[in-house]
Amino acid sequence: MKQSQMLIPTLKENPADAECVSHRLLIKAGFIRQNASGIYSYLPLGYKVLRKIEAIVREEMERAGCLELLMPAIQPAELWHETGRWDIYGPELMRLQDRHGRDFALGATHEEIITSLVRDELTTYKKLPMTLYQIQTKYRDERRPRFGLLRGREFIMKDAYSFHADEASLDERYKKMYEAYTNVFTRCGLDFRAVIADSGAMGGKDTHEFMALAAVGEDTIAYSDSSDYAANIEMAEVTFIPKASDEAMLPLDEGQAKQDGQALIHVQVFKDNEDQLVAVLYAAGDEVNDIKVKNALNATLLEAAPEAMNWSQNDILTHFDNVTILADNGIKNIVNGVIEASGKTLHFNVNAARDLSNVQFADLRMIKEGDPSPDGKGTIQFARGIEVGQVFKLGTRYSEAMNATFLDQNGKSQPLLMGCYGIGVSRTLSAVAEQHSDENGLCWPTALAPFAVHIMPINMKNDEQKTLAEKLYQELGHQYDVLLDDRNERAGVKFADSDLIGCPIRVTVGKKASEQIVEVKVRRTGESMELSVDEVAAFIEGHLS
Amino acid sequence: MKQSQMLIPTLKENPADAECVSHRLLIKAGFIRQNASGIYSYLPLGYKVLRKIEAIVREEMERAGCLELLMPAIQPAELWHETGRWDIYGPELMRLQDRHGRDFALGATHEEIITSLVRDELTTYKKLPMTLYQIQTKYRDERRPRFGLLRGREFIMKDAYSFHADEASLDERYKKMYEAYTNVFTRCGLDFRAVIADSGAMGGKDTHEFMALAAVGEDTIAYSDSSDYAANIEMAEVTFIPKASDEAMLPLDEGQAKQDGQALIHVQVFKDNEDQLVAVLYAAGDEVNDIKVKNALNATLLEAAPEAMNWSQNDILTHFDNVTILADNGIKNIVNGVIEASGKTLHFNVNAARDLSNVQFADLRMIKEGDPSPDGKGTIQFARGIEVGQVFKLGTRYSEAMNATFLDQNGKSQPLLMGCYGIGVSRTLSAVAEQHSDENGLCWPTALAPFAVHIMPINMKNDEQKTLAEKLYQELGHQYDVLLDDRNERAGVKFADSDLIGCPIRVTVGKKASEQIVEVKVRRTGESMELSVDEVAAFIEGHLS
Repeated sequence: MKQSQMLIPTLKENPADAECVSHRLLIKAGFIRQNASGIYSYLPLGYKVLRKIEAIVREEMERAGCLELLMPAIQPAELWHETGRWDIYGPELMRLQDRHGRDFALGATHEEIITSLVRDELTTYKKLPMTLYQIQTKYRDERRPRFGLLRGREFIMKDAYSFHADEASLDERYKKMYEAYTNVFTRCGLDFRAVIADSGAMGGKDTHEFMALAAVGEDTIAYSDSSDYAANIEMAEVTFIPKASDEAMLPLDEGQAKQDGQALIHVQVFKDNEDQLVAVLYAAGDEVNDIKVKNALNATLLEAAPEAMNWSQNDILTHFDNVTILADNGIKNIVNGVIEASGKTLHFNVNAARDLSNVQFADLRMIKEGDPSPDGKGTIQFARGIEVGQVFKLGTRYSEAMNATFLDQNGKSQPLLMGCYGIGVSRTLSAVAEQHSDENGLCWPTALAPFAVHIMPINMKNDEQKTLAEKLYQELGHQYDVLLDDRNERAGVKFADSDLIGCPIRVTVGKKASEQIVEVKVRRTGESMELSVDEVAAFIEGHLS
Repeated sequence: MKQSQMLIPTLKENPADAECVSHRLLIKAGFIRQNASGIYSYLPLGYKVLRKIEAIVREEMERAGCLELLMPAIQPAELWHETGRWDIYGPELMRLQDRHGRDFALGATHEEIITSLVRDELTTYKKLPMTLYQIQTKYRDERRPRFGLLRGREFIMKDAYSFHADEASLDERYKKMYEAYTNVFTRCGLDFRAVIADSGAMGGKDTHEFMALAAVGEDTIAYSDSSDYAANIEMAEVTFIPKASDEAMLPLDEGQAKQDGQALIHVQVFKDNEDQLVAVLYAAGDEVNDIKVKNALNATLLEAAPEAMNWSQNDILTHFDNVTILADNGIKNIVNGVIEASGKTLHFNVNAARDLSNVQFADLRMIKEGDPSPDGKGTIQFARGIEVGQVFKLGTRYSEAMNATFLDQNGKSQPLLMGCYGIGVSRTLSAVAEQHSDENGLCWPTALAPFAVHIMPINMKNDEQKTLAEKLYQELGHQYDVLLDDRNERAGVKFADSDLIGCPIRVTVGKKASEQIVEVKVRRTGESMELSVDEVAAFIEGHLS
């Protein structure tokens, strides 16, 4: 492609409203343009990258035995009423009426549509399992669209849905999709972790999120420095339990004065969905993890209720029969500890083995950096991540609500077991840009680069340079996507644009064109060398393959 | 692909609501499913065909030097206010509000968005010309969605927009796109005509519509039986003017009795946008063409006003100074004609040369079957057509409204000249299905077929048949998209499904499998023969290439 005929509107200045690296560079390098808050156009360079990601996704989905289809964005409200999500989805779901006043949703996701499609078709175990996917535009009216393509309102997703007769089949598919996702993000050149995630509101079971590591990420990941263990910080199990000290146990509440070095226990109070008060005891310096408390109680709702208790001395362990007391494993072996709440000391010389024998212990705290990894390998570190994919065992949440059943081998009607699997295609584009850049611009991985090679005659008015550049453009064009900067611009402008766009290899045709010598530069490493024209193809092949 | 693992939900019965061949067969053969009125899902087979059409469109656009990009479906109302189309587009434009109450349109077309994108970029003649295109989902809330994908509310279009500094450049691009469209529809196997169309409401100049010929088409085309002349019936020029008879002229209004064989002239009355009355004289048996009258008058609006005149004898040619009188060329040489209006005779012995010398003559009638073709070659025939594409010289309609200007070679600011070019991608799919079927199902052209070869072992429980079928599946799979019907269904069901789906070649593996003999059948012609396994590949290559 000749650059004079392309639309690559690079900017000299940083765009004022860009909030992160990828947002800034994708606009500055002319890959995308904003049309409204959270709504973008992909200009030719951006669209080329997007199509390469789509091709990788498609290849891996086909390899994993998924079938591609395409569902509509406009979805009748009736289907969303069947699952109850018309009412519970909230303002993120964009809605509209047609000319007859009928309600429709703009698809934020496609569980309802796909379930309505298959309930008429997958009616016997003989047709199971089946996994269907689409690459399609999704709509979510984010409260606060930001970071360019990272949190947009109109974006491109690959969403897949699998249907099964039994858990074993769902498990197998989940594993296969997990592997396919690992392949996709690896091929896209992402530094990512598959993290254990919270299945919470979706009502399912197992779920992993694929997180591209990046400081701008909105989620915190706890990962092992020595294994592939990773989890959303809220989901990371704490297995480490401090040992008991060899101090002698002192009598409870005797002495009445806090000693230096005594272990401190804090109390946090919650109210569950049945208004039952819950007091959680945990080691000072730790942080209670609401999700773990909720799971320990099997509660559907949990609210902090710090004002609900009127503390006085010596009361938590003895005077509150109507309060459920839970304790974090971190104080399981505590010796002569002190319980404090709301700034008051409640008990002295608390010994878990003696005084907390009736209390339910569980893992109730947030994991911390430095904790041992739950898989026994290495130490926990924190990182920020951008969610680029998720695999999810939905179970029968949708099939039961929408009456999508099949006849099993015994002729018995059963709800379909379902899994769902998403990849943020446009978000992946941004995540790659977020990870692959330097102070001069983007540095695309070869698999996604809009062009593999950028040929740069320094002076198009010089016949030798022009002729040699065009010869290279022809020759290399047989094998690679090549961009030829045939513009009559100053060399400085052309180099700056080239760095900004970030093709993996640049071939500069300058003064030594007359000697058939060019400069070849690797964008990512900055490595650069003079080569004779005959050596260029071999160098590029060696580098890009 | 193994059929047991595909989703091909064929139906035994015709769908009750299907209104035309393509709608019926695409549903019956399991290519599409309706989700709501005018809103469809493309199941795996349908989506495979759609992707093949997209690939052809993309190749021809690239070859014509167009740049691909992707614009959003959600478009801010502000842009539509700039062109005034927010108010004039009517209920076909789907509209919604975001959570902040801001107005958006769901893109029915993208003139506003593309013009807003380029007005910041294409600011000098040096960057012109440029043609940008996208393949994208469009939304139009049709008053009466019907015929399956032919008139849907959510559909897929390729839309291209070109930008130019002068008319010559726009003309050249128009010609190039016309050729590219001819290539696209030819490669898709469509029987089509490029017809001269009405640029009417869009405010542009030249325009051609590409019409796939089909009885279900909503437009009537006038075409020559001996050349490539074709036009929308309203646009077809009538060049034929009957010669004068050699009768002697009789005095006007003398005799007062109609003679057998006298030529009859009718009068039709209109009111224009300035309430001026217009009477059109034309030969009985012809039909007045409103568009031609409007153009002759240079009027923006024209309404029939049959009650506006109070006729009495001998008045039209003498008593109505306040009425504009126009006459169709068909009565230019009339001799001793009779003028009638509203059942009354107004004049006898009208002779154009004598009595209509002050009247403006023009081509004002609809063309008829049997008229000479306006290009002088052959005779006009009528056909019905489905509009699958349109090329259009927009001129400065949008660039002026949206202030999209460039500096010309003299440094003078000028509005960009624009062209726009659309292909109905999903409609093309239906149009091909409409043209390529027989009583048993679809007959896909090779270029669009979801699978090139359908291998059909009659009995999967017969080891010889199964083994031979799988061997052919492997071997032919290296070169073609092959579908293997590995289902344990009755032969009758399998054959019926195969005819319905309509792959170009079927290889049936039956009783002669033990002799390494199979039956090969060409779907379109019904031609069928027994071949030894070794001959199959060569036959298929010969047939499909």
